[in-house]
Amino acid sequence: MKEGQDMAGTAPSRKDEWTFRAYLAELDRRGELATVAAPVHEDPFGISACLSALHQGPALHFTHPGPTGLTVAGNLLNSIDRVGLGLRLDRGALPAAIASAIGRPLRPREVARGACQEVEMEPDLGLLPIPRFFEHETGPYITAGCIVARDSRTGLGNLSYARLKPLGPDRALVGIAPNHHLAVMARAAAARGERLPIAVTVGNHPVVLVAAALYLKLGEDEMEVAGALQGAPVGVVRCRTSDLLVPADCEVVIEGEIEVGETVEEGPVSEYHGMYERYGAGHVVRITAITRRRDAIFQVIEPGFHIEHLLIGGVAIAAGLEQHLKGFVPAVERVSVLDSGCGRLSAVVVLGPDRKPGDPVKAIMGALSAVNLIKQVTVVDNDIDPWDEFQVQYAVATRMRADRDIVVVPGARTDRSEPMKLGGTIAKYGFDATRHAEDRDDWTPARAPADAYRDAAPIIDAIRAGKRRI
Amino acid sequence: MKEGQDMAGTAPSRKDEWTFRAYLAELDRRGELATVAAPVHEDPFGISACLSALHQGPALHFTHPGPTGLTVAGNLLNSIDRVGLGLRLDRGALPAAIASAIGRPLRPREVARGACQEVEMEPDLGLLPIPRFFEHETGPYITAGCIVARDSRTGLGNLSYARLKPLGPDRALVGIAPNHHLAVMARAAAARGERLPIAVTVGNHPVVLVAAALYLKLGEDEMEVAGALQGAPVGVVRCRTSDLLVPADCEVVIEGEIEVGETVEEGPVSEYHGMYERYGAGHVVRITAITRRRDAIFQVIEPGFHIEHLLIGGVAIAAGLEQHLKGFVPAVERVSVLDSGCGRLSAVVVLGPDRKPGDPVKAIMGALSAVNLIKQVTVVDNDIDPWDEFQVQYAVATRMRADRDIVVVPGARTDRSEPMKLGGTIAKYGFDATRHAEDRDDWTPARAPADAYRDAAPIIDAIRAGKRRI
Repeated sequence: MKEGQDMAGTAPSRKDEWTFRAYLAELDRRGELATVAAPVHEDPFGISACLSALHQGPALHFTHPGPTGLTVAGNLLNSIDRVGLGLRLDRGALPAAIASAIGRPLRPREVARGACQEVEMEPDLGLLPIPRFFEHETGPYITAGCIVARDSRTGLGNLSYARLKPLGPDRALVGIAPNHHLAVMARAAAARGERLPIAVTVGNHPVVLVAAALYLKLGEDEMEVAGALQGAPVGVVRCRTSDLLVPADCEVVIEGEIEVGETVEEGPVSEYHGMYERYGAGHVVRITAITRRRDAIFQVIEPGFHIEHLLIGGVAIAAGLEQHLKGFVPAVERVSVLDSGCGRLSAVVVLGPDRKPGDPVKAIMGALSAVNLIKQVTVVDNDIDPWDEFQVQYAVATRMRADRDIVVVPGARTDRSEPMKLGGTIAKYGFDATRHAEDRDDWTPARAPADAYRDAAPIIDAIRAGKRRI
Repeated sequence: MKEGQDMAGTAPSRKDEWTFRAYLAELDRRGELATVAAPVHEDPFGISACLSALHQGPALHFTHPGPTGLTVAGNLLNSIDRVGLGLRLDRGALPAAIASAIGRPLRPREVARGACQEVEMEPDLGLLPIPRFFEHETGPYITAGCIVARDSRTGLGNLSYARLKPLGPDRALVGIAPNHHLAVMARAAAARGERLPIAVTVGNHPVVLVAAALYLKLGEDEMEVAGALQGAPVGVVRCRTSDLLVPADCEVVIEGEIEVGETVEEGPVSEYHGMYERYGAGHVVRITAITRRRDAIFQVIEPGFHIEHLLIGGVAIAAGLEQHLKGFVPAVERVSVLDSGCGRLSAVVVLGPDRKPGDPVKAIMGALSAVNLIKQVTVVDNDIDPWDEFQVQYAVATRMRADRDIVVVPGARTDRSEPMKLGGTIAKYGFDATRHAEDRDDWTPARAPADAYRDAAPIIDAIRAGKRRI
C-alpha cells in the first residue's frame, strides 16, 4: 500500500460501518495507526517483534503483501481507551454497557453475500500470513480467530477464542481449555460419533472481538451480544462447507471440523502472565475451506503478556464481574481488570458513597469467589478511576491501613494457568483502599477553583491535543 | 514571546550550560515544552489550573508578561525521564549517581557578577508573579524557591525547600517543618539573639532543584552535591544584603531574614497526598532585597499531589534509601520512590540474583525503618524497572504469594503529614514480589528471538519517535 492510499483498498470505509477495516481507518484518522511497508515478514518472528515492542503504541498495519499477497494488522485494542473507541463507549461505561448487552441479545441477520467470501482459496493454511510469535513455541499461531460453533443437538451457537497452530496444509492443533464451552461441545459431538464443525473468523470489528471473550452461560451466543453492542444484528453469511453463520464483513474465514479422537502434543505455549505453559495434548482441526476478502487484512493479536491480549480478556471479565457484584453489593459502581494484573489476576472495585460498613470486604470475597483466576481485589472510592493504575495505587498508599484493611484467604481454588498455584490452590487477597468513617474526615482535595479550570480549558485541551504554541 | 522566538530571550542558551533556561530550551527542542501566550494570570489561579491539569504533560512557559513584566514556567521535572534528562543521566542510574555525588561534594566557585543580579528590584513581593494554587489555601505561594542559608557559628551551608506565602510587600510566612535543618538553624540563631539570613533562589537548573531536596547530615551542603552532579562547581555570587552565596545563573533571588520570635498562623496548606494539612503557626521572613535577571522567568512547582512535586522529593528519597540499603543488603541494586505513593510513602527495591533467602524481608524492614514517611515497600527482581508502575504491579500479581510474602508491622513511627496516622504511628507493610527458589523454576519470558528485535529495531524506533508511515 502506498502512503496516503485509503487502507480499505477496493472498498473505502464509511465511519458508520461496524467492520474491521472501518475501525482501522478510524485509528488512522486519529494518528493511532502506523503503516509499515517494509517486508517485516521476511523474518518469521518479525511481526511479533514489532507488535510486542510496540504493544503500548499505535496499531500496526504491515502493508507489504509478502508471499501470500495478504497484509497483516495488529495491536488494535491495546489500551482501554482504544477498546472504548472501538465500542463507541467511554472507558468508564464499558463493563456496564457490555453487561447490559448480554441482557438484550440481538440475533444475527443472515445475508446472501458477504465480503468475507469474495475469494474462495485452496484449504491450505500455508496461503495465510500466519506469524510465529515466541522463540520456544513450536510453530506459528492464528491468535485473533473468533471461532463460531453450534451444538447440533440444541442448535445453540457459541463464539469464542482458541489459538490454532498449523500442523500441515489442512490440519491444525486447536488449543482449548477442557472447561471451555467449545471443548464441551466438541466432546458432546464426539460422544454422538460426530465431528464438530467450526469456522475461525479473522479480522472482526471490536464488538465481535470483545463479545468473543465473554464467558456466557452455555447456549448463550456471544454473536448476539455483539449485535446488541452495535445496536443492530451482525450481518452473517452461511459457510461453504457447513451451516455455520459467520460475520459477512470479516476478512478471512477458515472452515473446519474438530476431531476429538485425534490429539497432538502442543509443546510450550505462551500464557497471559508472560511465561510458557505446557498444557499437554490438544485437539486436531481438519480444514475444509478458506474464504476471504479480495484484499484481506489478516489480523493478529500478540499473545502472552501484551496489552491487547490482556485487555480483551480483562474487559470481558470486568463486565461479568461488575454485573455479578452488583447483584449483592448494591454500592458497586464500576469494576476494572487491569493489564498489570495480566487482565486475569486482579480486579479493582469502585464503591459509591452509599456503601455500608463491611461492603468493601464483601465485594472482595464476592470477586475472589466468582472468577477462579482473580486473586487480587482492590476496593476504592468513586473518585478513583479504576482503569488508571496510578490512581489505584495512590488510593492504596493514602487510604489503606495495612493492619486493618488487608484480607488474605489461603487455599482458594484457582485455574491451571495461575502462575503461583500449589496443587490447584492459591492464597487470594484483597485491599480495602476506601476511606473509613473513623479515619480523618477532612479530606478535601486541594484544587484550583472550578472557574479557573473552566477558563483555562481551551489552553489545556490544545496542549493535550499536542499543540506546543498557544 | 512570539512563536519560534528563542525562549532564552536576550541570552540564547547553549546546550552545555547548566542553567534553568538552557534546560527549558532543551525541552523545547524535544517538543516537551508548550509556550502559552494567553494572559492566563488574569485569574490568580489560572496558572495553577494549567499546571495541575497538565501535570503529566509538557513543561509550560506562560510568556505573557502580565502586570509584573515577568514570565512564568512550570512542570519542568514531571516525569522520571525528564529528571534524568535534566541531570543528563539514564533514569535507572539516577539514585546511584546522586548518592555518589553526595560522597564527593564540589565546593561552589564565587564569581564577581551573576545574571541573577542584573536588576535590583524594590524589595516588594508584589512585583513577582506569584500564583495562587488551591482554593482553600490562604494566599499565593512561592513553591520553587531553593533556600540558601548558613550557620553563622559553624560556617556550614544548607540548601533546602520551604514554601513562602507573602504577608505584605516585604514580609512572608515561611513553612518549615520543625525538624528541618533550616528550622534548627533558625532556632540556633534566635538563641544567640540573631536573625537567620536566607536567600530564596528561584529558577534553578535541575541539578540544584534535585540537590535541594536531599536530606543530608546537618552541615553537609546540598549546593556542593549540585556541583558534583554537574561535574563542575556551581558558580555563585554574593548576596546584596548578606554574605550568602547564590547560584549566579538563577532567575530571581529574594534576600531576607527569618525572625524566629514572630510567628503567624498559616491556615490550611496543601500536602503531597493531595489534601490539606493544618500545621499551625510558621516563622516570618523579612525581605531585604530582590534581584533578578533582566528577562527573568519565574519558576513555579505545582504543589500537592502533582507529579513534579512528588518526583523531586521521590528521587531524592530514593537516592538516600538506595545508599542506605546497600550498606547492609549487598544484593540491593536499585531503589525507586514512585509518584503513585506520592513520592513519599512507597518504595520499590530491586534485588540482584545474588540475594540470599530473607533478603527481601531484610530490605523491607531496612527501608521502613530508615524513612519515617515510607510505609510501603515492594521488593522485585532485577528484570523489573522499579520506576515503571505497570511492571511493579505485574510483579506483585505474578510473583507474590499473599500468605507468605506480605509483611505488616503495626505501630511504626511516622511523620506528621502521614495521611492515615493514629497518634503519630502507622502500620507499615511490605510485599515480597521476588521469585523464590521453591516456586516454579520454568519462568522463561516468552519473547521473539533477539535477531527479530534487532532486525525490526529501525521500524520500532521510527514508530516510537512518532512516525506513522514507515
